[in-house]
Amino acid sequence: MRLYSYFRSSSAYRVRIAMNLKALPYSIEAVHLLKDGGKQFTKQHADRNPMQQVPVLEVDGRFLSQSMAICLYLESEFPQKPLLANDAWTRAQQLAFCEIINSGIQPLQNLSLLNKLDSKFQIGAEGKKEWMSENVTRGFDALENILQTSAGDHCFGDEISLADCFLVPQVFSAKRFGVDMNRFPLISAIDQNCLKLEAIQKAHPEQQADFEA
Amino acid sequence: MRLYSYFRSSSAYRVRIAMNLKALPYSIEAVHLLKDGGKQFTKQHADRNPMQQVPVLEVDGRFLSQSMAICLYLESEFPQKPLLANDAWTRAQQLAFCEIINSGIQPLQNLSLLNKLDSKFQIGAEGKKEWMSENVTRGFDALENILQTSAGDHCFGDEISLADCFLVPQVFSAKRFGVDMNRFPLISAIDQNCLKLEAIQKAHPEQQADFEA
Repeated sequence: MRLYSYFRSSSAYRVRIAMNLKALPYSIEAVHLLKDGGKQFTKQHADRNPMQQVPVLEVDGRFLSQSMAICLYLESEFPQKPLLANDAWTRAQQLAFCEIINSGIQPLQNLSLLNKLDSKFQIGAEGKKEWMSENVTRGFDALENILQTSAGDHCFGDEISLADCFLVPQVFSAKRFGVDMNRFPLISAIDQNCLKLEAIQKAHPEQQADFEA
Repeated sequence: MRLYSYFRSSSAYRVRIAMNLKALPYSIEAVHLLKDGGKQFTKQHADRNPMQQVPVLEVDGRFLSQSMAICLYLESEFPQKPLLANDAWTRAQQLAFCEIINSGIQPLQNLSLLNKLDSKFQIGAEGKKEWMSENVTRGFDALENILQTSAGDHCFGDEISLADCFLVPQVFSAKRFGVDMNRFPLISAIDQNCLKLEAIQKAHPEQQADFEA
C-alpha cells in the first residue's frame, strides 16, 4: 500500500498512526500542499482524489480518499490490533468522538479554509490564530466533556482506539497555532500517553521524510 | 428510539432518511436551532450532545451524536435493508463519498459557520450565498466526477446506499441557497430518483412536524 501524505496534514497524520498501530507495511509519497501553488491541484493528484486533498491510500493501483473511510477500510481488512470496540454502542461513541474532530473541528481550521479567510477578509496571521483557537476550543470543550466519563490512559479506557488516532493530530495542530491547552487536562494527558508509543512517534510530522521546519 | 432533529438540518435529514429506509420505528423531538437564541444551547441538549448540535439519537436513555456515527450504528445493529456494500472496497468508496459531504462540504456551509462569517465579517445575505455556492460547487464537482464511474439510478449502481442518504440533504441545502444545479447532471438525476421514494419523501424537511416556511 502507498499513502499519499503531507507531513503537516492532520488528516494524513491520523492514517499514519492507524497504519503504524496495525503494523501495516506501506510507503509514503509526499504531496506538497504549498509548493508551486499546491501539488494536490495537479491533474495527477486530482485523478487520485477529485477533492484534491491528502490523505489518499493506494491499494493495488486503486485509490481511496478521506481519512475516516481509509481508517474504517483498514479496520475491516486488517483486524489485527483493533482500533474500534467490539461493543456496538462503545464503537459508535468512538466514531462520534472521531467525527467531532473530523467534521466538527478540522474542516474549520485547515489550511485551505484559513487561506480562504485571509484572501477574502484579510484576517492575517493574528486573525488566523484567533479563528483557529475559537473553533478548536469549542470542539475540545466537547471532547474534554466526553472524556470525563470515557477516558482511561486513552480516550476510551486504557486501550488505544481510533479516537486517539484522531485526537493526537488535532492536538498537534492546536499547539502549532498556540491554543492554550491548560484548559484541556484530559486531552493533554491522553496526548502525552499516546506520544510515548513508538507507532505514534513514527507518524509524527517531524519524523516524515518530507518534513520541513 | 428517539431522534433529536431540526427540520432544516441536513445532518438530521440524513439520519431520518437512513432510519426510514430501514423502516425503523422512532419518534422525533424537535430542537429549534433558531428560537430563543438556539435550543441546542440549552443545558438539557448539551447533556445529550456536548457539541450542541443535532442530530442526536436516543437509544434506551443513552445518547449518540454525529450523523455518520449514528448511521454506522444503525447499519451494524439493524442490518435489514443494508446501506453499505458487502464488498470492502466499494463500502470504503461509499464512505469516502459520504465523508466528502460530511466533512468536506457541510461544515463549510452550515448555519453556524455562515452566521459566524456574518457576525465577524458582515458578509450579509449575498455574501452567505456566494460563500455557500463556492464551497458546495467545489465539493459537488468532486462528487460529480466520482459518479461518472460509480452511478446507476443511485450513487453506487442501482441500489440505494448511505451515499444517497448524504447526497439528498446536501442537494436540498444547495438549492435553498440558489446553487446552480445545471452544472451537476448526475447529482441532479440521482436526487430526483431518490425523491421518488416514499421513505425519503417522509424524511423531507417540509414533511416534518417542526417545519416552518
